[in-house]
Amino acid sequence: MKDVGMKPESLRRARASAELLAPPHCIELLRSGDTEKGDPLKTARVAGILAAKRTDELIPLCHPLPIHRAEVTYELGDDRVRIIAEVETIGPTGVEMEALAAASLAALTIYDMLKPYCEPAEMSIRDCRLDEKRGGKSQYKRKLP
Amino acid sequence: MKDVGMKPESLRRARASAELLAPPHCIELLRSGDTEKGDPLKTARVAGILAAKRTDELIPLCHPLPIHRAEVTYELGDDRVRIIAEVETIGPTGVEMEALAAASLAALTIYDMLKPYCEPAEMSIRDCRLDEKRGGKSQYKRKLP
Amino acid sequence: MKDVGMKPESLRRARASAELLAPPHCIELLRSGDTEKGDPLKTARVAGILAAKRTDELIPLCHPLPIHRAEVTYELGDDRVRIIAEVETIGPTGVEMEALAAASLAALTIYDMLKPYCEPAEMSIRDCRLDEKRGGKSQYKRKLP
Amino acid sequence: MKDVGMKPESLRRARASAELLAPPHCIELLRSGDTEKGDPLKTARVAGILAAKRTDELIPLCHPLPIHRAEVTYELGDDRVRIIAEVETIGPTGVEMEALAAASLAALTIYDMLKPYCEPAEMSIRDCRLDEKRGGKSQYKRKLP
Amino acid sequence: MKDVGMKPESLRRARASAELLAPPHCIELLRSGDTEKGDPLKTARVAGILAAKRTDELIPLCHPLPIHRAEVTYELGDDRVRIIAEVETIGPTGVEMEALAAASLAALTIYDMLKPYCEPAEMSIRDCRLDEKRGGKSQYKRKLP
Amino acid sequence: MKDVGMKPESLRRARASAELLAPPHCIELLRSGDTEKGDPLKTARVAGILAAKRTDELIPLCHPLPIHRAEVTYELGDDRVRIIAEVETIGPTGVEMEALAAASLAALTIYDMLKPYCEPAEMSIRDCRLDEKRGGKSQYKRKLP
Repeated sequence: MKDVGMKPESLRRARASAELLAPPHCIELLRSGDTEKGDPLKTARVAGILAAKRTDELIPLCHPLPIHRAEVTYELGDDRVRIIAEVETIGPTGVEMEALAAASLAALTIYDMLKPYCEPAEMSIRDCRLDEKRGGKSQYKRKLP
Repeated sequence: MKDVGMKPESLRRARASAELLAPPHCIELLRSGDTEKGDPLKTARVAGILAAKRTDELIPLCHPLPIHRAEVTYELGDDRVRIIAEVETIGPTGVEMEALAAASLAALTIYDMLKPYCEPAEMSIRDCRLDEKRGGKSQYKRKLP
Repeated sequence: MKDVGMKPESLRRARASAELLAPPHCIELLRSGDTEKGDPLKTARVAGILAAKRTDELIPLCHPLPIHRAEVTYELGDDRVRIIAEVETIGPTGVEMEALAAASLAALTIYDMLKPYCEPAEMSIRDCRLDEKRGGKSQYKRKLP
Repeated sequence: MKDVGMKPESLRRARASAELLAPPHCIELLRSGDTEKGDPLKTARVAGILAAKRTDELIPLCHPLPIHRAEVTYELGDDRVRIIAEVETIGPTGVEMEALAAASLAALTIYDMLKPYCEPAEMSIRDCRLDEKRGGKSQYKRKLP
Repeated sequence: MKDVGMKPESLRRARASAELLAPPHCIELLRSGDTEKGDPLKTARVAGILAAKRTDELIPLCHPLPIHRAEVTYELGDDRVRIIAEVETIGPTGVEMEALAAASLAALTIYDMLKPYCEPAEMSIRDCRLDEKRGGKSQYKRKLP
Repeated sequence: MKDVGMKPESLRRARASAELLAPPHCIELLRSGDTEKGDPLKTARVAGILAAKRTDELIPLCHPLPIHRAEVTYELGDDRVRIIAEVETIGPTGVEMEALAAASLAALTIYDMLKPYCEPAEMSIRDCRLDEKRGGKSQYKRKLP
């Protein structure tokens, strides 16, 4: 694990997202929040926030960071939901991996809760990516396609 | 968390995969195993196996299962690597989520270790999906495209 | 940690509950699910289920058990909410502690999410207890007061 | 998880407690420290301190904090034991939940270790509450009844 | 992680130990149980039992196993303490690593609690080894030197 | 857990090591990195780094610390491998236990991966010790024997 002790602490923000493809009747279940396992979006938000806080346990070379903010929001389409995770810290290194982990685990949680309602071929997670980071020596913002 | 106590125990297998897109010089680093953070493919294998074993902590409505086997392998392309996770148990419920979690966390670990060598716009994880499951009442095998 | 290897496996159920006292306007927030930290009852359900699954990490002399079912429900009063946790396993020892841990952590999660809306003196958790257990050599059902 | 990045860091202290009711012969076992599962009070102290350090994993919207001190002490009565947890940090947000989690898990650990010696109806945890907090913009001290 | 699904389940036992060397006045502190951080032997017992239960998280290629029994005991010498860990399960693979992990973490916990009372050169852990295993296809018992 | 809130933060470094004795053909397997469970040295490095980051969960009275660097390296002999762990933080207390935990868990991971290739009597871990610490009020460097 690299030495970050000599890097200055600064406000770091990252936003990442992932997209879950699912049949329209499954996306309807996300809107109603009513599946046999509970409310997928609210459960996935908790899973994503918890994942952000323990990213250094899940991704071996990540540094532990004092997460100051973590949030998961959603954009619902007809046959897809985009999961957006935002994370902030004040620290010597960025929170890109924390945001990516939060988006990934939230997406997997929704997948798990929709699984009884469709076939495996009908669901997949695609385009898990960093959308923006601020703080540190490099800025980044993904251009819209 | 649903009741699975009355479901019969049987051998369950699942194979899932995810694809990380990265520039060719980064894929070369995967082949050589030589980055400033260590060997990405071998580190990601460990991260994936550990994720399979703690899936029930990461995905809230998953049941704890006695994982009997977990493995992570790779298919390297020119500008991508496919991460393949296989998990087995003998239990009342399947290991799809364990395989998906292993593939996702292994992909994120590789992302983290390649991050110093390219721009955020050059990497993303796509097409995280279940490829096959066996055991239980339904079989599934994804058709090749 | 006691030896349970020679005890026969059987279906074990436990139901435990805890009561959180809070001002009526806070209980209203539970009904609406709308606080600055999110939806308390749905978040606390997740916290309780996760706690049930990791009870053996939290309570040192508890055995790890393959939790087959865990659920958290609520009874809302005017100035209180009763949190009810039910847990099941098929194993050599009971799930009382799992149910008690689920109820306690769900209660603490609600407390945490209502904390910005009232004074510390206005909230407390009381009467965290086992309500029923089945399976094993002893049955138990708490008599109504 | 709320943003606490802009809140100033200051010394934060919290003291919480919970009360376990148990038959007098069980309270005697706490004094002697001699049960078939080991020494309840010393084991529960460890469980409480560990809980304080991982509160942000257990209570989903809690922030990770660098715990500087955590201690668990006891007041033994004839048919009850009060578990008192004190936690300190220097951080942007308080440690109330850490103290409450420590008191709760310590109480559950004692419950687990006394369980073989009495009936479920004879034990319960009551009155888990915040007793004092210092630091941050609001002070609090519970008045004696 | 190797496939153990086809191996028959049987009763498995393992006993491992480690030896901590420390100055006589530190060993006296172990007897009295009275250090500024608490009672070392009782705290280390808890640490060892917890380590046995989470060995599959700590040692990446270990399988999760339903630990049926875990215990830590001590043999005190003049300038050393031997930490003995015994673990049992009924499963398809043995618990050697669980016993070794329990002995190691218990030894490190004692080291941590004695650390304020002596110089680093005066303490070390040596001879961490498997003493006996039973069950499975191979038996083993370490010969006395 | 002792109060470290009033101790000044400073750069803290610790180096610890442990030695695993194993038959020469097993040490050869470490060089080739080719066992049925995977590459022992690279897997053990990950296990050691992860252990350093969660030392406060494993050793009950340790404080959580923002680990800034953790690394595991090896010195291979004919019938032994020395595992060397170095850890750094900027904090109010040292990282000796983190370095010792990293060395111990890395050693146990190698042990686990070599286990299929030799008899239990042929392997043991010895001489797990602190080699150097810097920062804080006391310096330490172990003298060569």
